[in-house]
Amino acid sequence: MTQIFNFSAGPAMIPTAVLEQAQAELLNWQEQGTSVMEISHRGKYFMDMITQCEKDLRQLFHIPDNYKVLFLQGGARGQFAAVPMNLANNKGKALYLVNGHWSSVAAKEAASFTQVDEINILNSDRMLRVDRLDFSDIAEQYDYVHYCTNETISGVEIFDVPNVGNAVLVADMSSDILSRHIDISKFGVIYAGAQKNMGPSGITLVIVRDDLIGNARQETPSIWNYAVQAKSDSMINTPPTFAWYLCGLVFKHLLTHGGLEAAEQRNRAKAELLYNYLNSNTFYHNYVAEENRSIMNVTFTTDNHELNAKFVAEATKAGLQALKGHKVLGGMRASIYNAMPIEGVQALIAFMQKFAQENA
Amino acid sequence: MTQIFNFSAGPAMIPTAVLEQAQAELLNWQEQGTSVMEISHRGKYFMDMITQCEKDLRQLFHIPDNYKVLFLQGGARGQFAAVPMNLANNKGKALYLVNGHWSSVAAKEAASFTQVDEINILNSDRMLRVDRLDFSDIAEQYDYVHYCTNETISGVEIFDVPNVGNAVLVADMSSDILSRHIDISKFGVIYAGAQKNMGPSGITLVIVRDDLIGNARQETPSIWNYAVQAKSDSMINTPPTFAWYLCGLVFKHLLTHGGLEAAEQRNRAKAELLYNYLNSNTFYHNYVAEENRSIMNVTFTTDNHELNAKFVAEATKAGLQALKGHKVLGGMRASIYNAMPIEGVQALIAFMQKFAQENA
Repeated sequence: MTQIFNFSAGPAMIPTAVLEQAQAELLNWQEQGTSVMEISHRGKYFMDMITQCEKDLRQLFHIPDNYKVLFLQGGARGQFAAVPMNLANNKGKALYLVNGHWSSVAAKEAASFTQVDEINILNSDRMLRVDRLDFSDIAEQYDYVHYCTNETISGVEIFDVPNVGNAVLVADMSSDILSRHIDISKFGVIYAGAQKNMGPSGITLVIVRDDLIGNARQETPSIWNYAVQAKSDSMINTPPTFAWYLCGLVFKHLLTHGGLEAAEQRNRAKAELLYNYLNSNTFYHNYVAEENRSIMNVTFTTDNHELNAKFVAEATKAGLQALKGHKVLGGMRASIYNAMPIEGVQALIAFMQKFAQENA
Repeated sequence: MTQIFNFSAGPAMIPTAVLEQAQAELLNWQEQGTSVMEISHRGKYFMDMITQCEKDLRQLFHIPDNYKVLFLQGGARGQFAAVPMNLANNKGKALYLVNGHWSSVAAKEAASFTQVDEINILNSDRMLRVDRLDFSDIAEQYDYVHYCTNETISGVEIFDVPNVGNAVLVADMSSDILSRHIDISKFGVIYAGAQKNMGPSGITLVIVRDDLIGNARQETPSIWNYAVQAKSDSMINTPPTFAWYLCGLVFKHLLTHGGLEAAEQRNRAKAELLYNYLNSNTFYHNYVAEENRSIMNVTFTTDNHELNAKFVAEATKAGLQALKGHKVLGGMRASIYNAMPIEGVQALIAFMQKFAQENA
């Protein structure tokens, strides 16, 4: 069989070693004679697992002690609603920085729960570029300022942390969580769906600073009430146990492979390889400014619909899967999350070179 | 190794054949060279899978055409909030029938979102007995009437459908869904967490009558807005793909083993065996009236704390797992959902007989 490389934007690749371990112990976890899916989440074995899982994540991501770690249901889209329910109860309005599809969707959802002011921070004149990150002059009139660190559709990533003065900064890090070092102390809340860099879909990580817990409005579903869930080990109801377990395996896998520092080096090396190749030719184009080029989602196009379609079809046949760009944007997108080995990027570039020669 | 029988109340047993199939194809699903967890939920392979999954469920559960089937996140506890958000927007109040822990918790959660009237329908004078099911005289002043078909903690099941006249009946069937035939046309909404009879935790089935869709209040998170999710194939955001896939395997497994009719026969036979044994001796006691004895969760006790603890410890050593009763009630509980083979019940009774002889 051809070696497969899966460039899916999400649900995305999970490290092969993790899937192999899950497979090996799927019917007999911890010598219990049952699957990890079939046991009480409140029993000793599962509780020990999640304790280790949180410990590993705290070590990996350098999470300060004054932050709680929650594992919730509902995806990032759930948090689009949960964040205003929990945080927008003092000044009654929030500021949303918009630099693409997902930050815009987050703002729209929040608007059902609080007053939302939006600022477009994406300059799309020639190349997509985030042209404003200082909001210290206006931020403190809001309960929080929200942004999305990495827009998966366009491949626009914000590496610097917005300056919001003493206001609360909230970040949707769904598609670049655990890909690089973050100074968590600059944030009030960080949340992320698991399905890019942490595990399977169906579980959502929320990291929330202690002083922001306990202010949820009455009309907050208990499964999203940060205070309720912080007090209940994220178990006010039955959690998605299998997804949680897999996240734990991924965290351990990252730790045993050099932690976040090594992961960031690998990610930057992969992205550099691909962007350097894109810079080196005129057959493919990427329309993101250098300083905002995502190290997770690399978008490119031949500027020709038929040629793009042919590229995707032939790449798929060659074992390079899921390279079709999001329907909103078209073109191609290579999602090269943590689990993508550099060999995948090398294989993609080799294919791109061949395809360019044959179709120039 | 001793044969293991897992009586966990949930997350509970999944059919071994289903887990074996999931294990075999965990790293290579549909000959794609990737896991079902690692592919786009909007791609052809996953879409084909969920189409078949819904078709199988409709056939299995005899779901009428005028009902939508949704697969959501957040568990039954999420629906405790989602139901009033979607339904309690006309008369502005709802009636909750309370016959145990979960129906009471549902009422409490709903009270954050609408006016709630509660009626206790559990008579606990001597034996737990549901003593009122006719609410046709009062039901129509409410947007809906909510009840829980099976209370897992006490093992109290309601087999007859409450009479609510022309009012909308909503049922939490988390712990007896797909265990027996239900006339779905009597219900407005049926919901259930997956982790007892359908699959792993982290996915929630909602079956909702067409005319009840489209009335959600503005402050409804989009992932729980029935209209939004019905229009989006339950994919307004990334769904819990692995859990959904496993549910599909369970539905197929049930269909190939005689459908719901055969499952109900097996369940009634298992429960009868165990209750008959409980009736036949004075060492163990069950405190549920005959007509409300759950065919999913069979509670029993020796009426002696130390003896109960000894029972659970020795049973565990004998391969009979997770028989400890819920902390609210104490004693023992054997959860004998669809996936529990009759051999498990036979092994339990044999152990109970031996234990009674040794400790009488």
